[in-house]
Amino acid sequence: SNMIKVAVVGGEGIGPEVTDQSHRILKWFSARRGVPVALREAQYGLIPYLATGKVLPDDTVEAMEEADAILWGATGGPETTEVPPAARKAGSLLSLRSKYDLYANLRPIVANPALADSAPLKTEVLKDVDFIIIRELTSGIYFGEPRGIEMLPDGQRRGFNTQQYTTNQIRRVARTAFELARTRKGRVCSVDKANVLETSLLWREEVAALHAAEFSDVELTHLYVDNAAMQIVRAPSQFDVMVTCNIFGDILSDCAAMASGSLGMLPSVSLGPPDRLGRRKALYEPVHGSAPDIAGKGIANPLGSILSVAMMLRITLNRPDDATLLEKAVDTALAAGARTADIAEPGAKRLSTQEMGDAVLNAL
Amino acid sequence: SNMIKVAVVGGEGIGPEVTDQSHRILKWFSARRGVPVALREAQYGLIPYLATGKVLPDDTVEAMEEADAILWGATGGPETTEVPPAARKAGSLLSLRSKYDLYANLRPIVANPALADSAPLKTEVLKDVDFIIIRELTSGIYFGEPRGIEMLPDGQRRGFNTQQYTTNQIRRVARTAFELARTRKGRVCSVDKANVLETSLLWREEVAALHAAEFSDVELTHLYVDNAAMQIVRAPSQFDVMVTCNIFGDILSDCAAMASGSLGMLPSVSLGPPDRLGRRKALYEPVHGSAPDIAGKGIANPLGSILSVAMMLRITLNRPDDATLLEKAVDTALAAGARTADIAEPGAKRLSTQEMGDAVLNAL
Ligand SMILES: CC(C)[C@H](C(=O)O)[C@@H](O)C(=O)O
Ligand SMILES: CC(C)[C@H](C(=O)O)[C@@H](O)C(=O)O
Repeated sequence: SNMIKVAVVGGEGIGPEVTDQSHRILKWFSARRGVPVALREAQYGLIPYLATGKVLPDDTVEAMEEADAILWGATGGPETTEVPPAARKAGSLLSLRSKYDLYANLRPIVANPALADSAPLKTEVLKDVDFIIIRELTSGIYFGEPRGIEMLPDGQRRGFNTQQYTTNQIRRVARTAFELARTRKGRVCSVDKANVLETSLLWREEVAALHAAEFSDVELTHLYVDNAAMQIVRAPSQFDVMVTCNIFGDILSDCAAMASGSLGMLPSVSLGPPDRLGRRKALYEPVHGSAPDIAGKGIANPLGSILSVAMMLRITLNRPDDATLLEKAVDTALAAGARTADIAEPGAKRLSTQEMGDAVLNAL
Repeated sequence: SNMIKVAVVGGEGIGPEVTDQSHRILKWFSARRGVPVALREAQYGLIPYLATGKVLPDDTVEAMEEADAILWGATGGPETTEVPPAARKAGSLLSLRSKYDLYANLRPIVANPALADSAPLKTEVLKDVDFIIIRELTSGIYFGEPRGIEMLPDGQRRGFNTQQYTTNQIRRVARTAFELARTRKGRVCSVDKANVLETSLLWREEVAALHAAEFSDVELTHLYVDNAAMQIVRAPSQFDVMVTCNIFGDILSDCAAMASGSLGMLPSVSLGPPDRLGRRKALYEPVHGSAPDIAGKGIANPLGSILSVAMMLRITLNRPDDATLLEKAVDTALAAGARTADIAEPGAKRLSTQEMGDAVLNAL
């Protein structure tokens, strides 16, 4: 069949609540706009662990295995203490990224004018902010070996980790960045610490070599990571596509998300390698975490998950018009004053998670 | 003699210009307030390289060797291309930090209300921002071995670096943080990535162990580095003393400096191990770099270097009243509207580097 398979995994904390809303939206696009998706729900976390001994039970593994796209909620929370570390690790987000080789993590940073009041940055600094950070997600220091903690002869302990990148690991994520830039403003900024680290020097050389060989129509610049952190706060509108290694991307993308004031509503996708037809396995998830403090209260902001569906429409489902339709509906809802607690001004009316889902559906 | 020896090394780019002003201020404290300093000027960079073949000539090494404190300007700039990499490396800031074991880099982040207009963060977010980031400066991934770039059998290249910390390397910098917190608001926030990295797990355990053993009167919290980057932008006034490893400190301190809007005027000090009397070799320098684009024009902001002298008065010279006197003089000059180009509003009068030095001296 030509149905695109989507696994819907709400996970833990506020994950299930927000995913319920994005799931509704996806069904709307299937029913009303004929988007050819086959949806399959699956469980993750404490509930399946208590039933099966696995946070990621076999049924969920199967659903994710056969899926073209995964709509993921969130993992973690206080409940995780009830799951032993080994069981937790076997089904962790890090191991999933690795298993499906989801090496390119795309995080759009867009400052919505309707939310300028709740952003820490000044309105004029946020003007025209619209860029994407691509974080390399399956290599670097989070995965490098050797790693561990050892005893030294003098009784001290020593902790060690290995930052490492190969030519291919660098080039494939840089390729994603250059290709994406061609569909946008045509600019890539590569971030490293090449004045100190050999891994960064190789990063810079390989990005530059791929650029010269295949993408010289794209504008390429390089920034040191300390300077990049400054520029994201000082003048974020200067960027189009930023590409960097796993650890720098982790820090910079959270910094940028917070600066834009849209943390609760930013989407992301992690992409695997393209097959012969250019299709890539994709895991879509909101940038925010499981927020255990508000889980189960029905007050979480579902827009990060809903906008992840917009990314899915654009990338996996190849329905750019539907993606734009959904993004516009979110803008319309926000412009009309729809606010969950995290983005509401003091005294303003606060919608529940469900009501925010309604507001977007009504605007569609 | 009981004179405290200070080496004054302006260095490159705007370093000599700004250091000229802080040098004047230090002489004022010597002449007018009886601060017992013996000042010795020395050269660094292209000029001594052309004369002697070394960026750090023997005379400068000697001056730094015998000094209790070094007042450092800046290094680097376009001129560095005239110095071969090996000669550059032999006298680099990294090698100096290592040579004098300057393991604790203190960077105060203070948002001056007079400068709120030129900060990217909103005024209410900047309210009451006054914290210090302590960056471990002589270990971690910037120094770890093995490191390099190698050829793989399949023709790819592989870059690798080693992040590493030992018990003692962690505890001595954490000790500096706890001791400093006792003289301030009594709170330390330690930043790591203990959910992924073994080096960070050891960092967290050792900081907690030292805290329990000797500093349980200080409040200790832990943050993951991605969350810390967010919090620095969202609510920087929550912090008192933050302590972290070399690479995280590099990124977070530049992010915080920019957010506060005071980049051109932030000071820093890098401290070595205490001797039996508690005295520590210290290198004072502004947080800003050599700014080659404006070097030689006499328009750079000298306040980062001048406020580094205030830190020197407080730490090496043990003259807290004089330190406060100098900080107040800077506040008075700013409150009266003294502005170099980097902090001036459009259309406002811009002082030269020298005039800003005059403004501070007049306020003393
Ligand atoms: C939970 C953690 C391992 C993860 C990461 O750092 O990759 C998270 O912070 C993220 O950014 O997705
Ligand atoms: C020049 C560079 C090696 C240095 C560092 O990263 O340590 C600089 O960025 C700093 O922060 O002092």
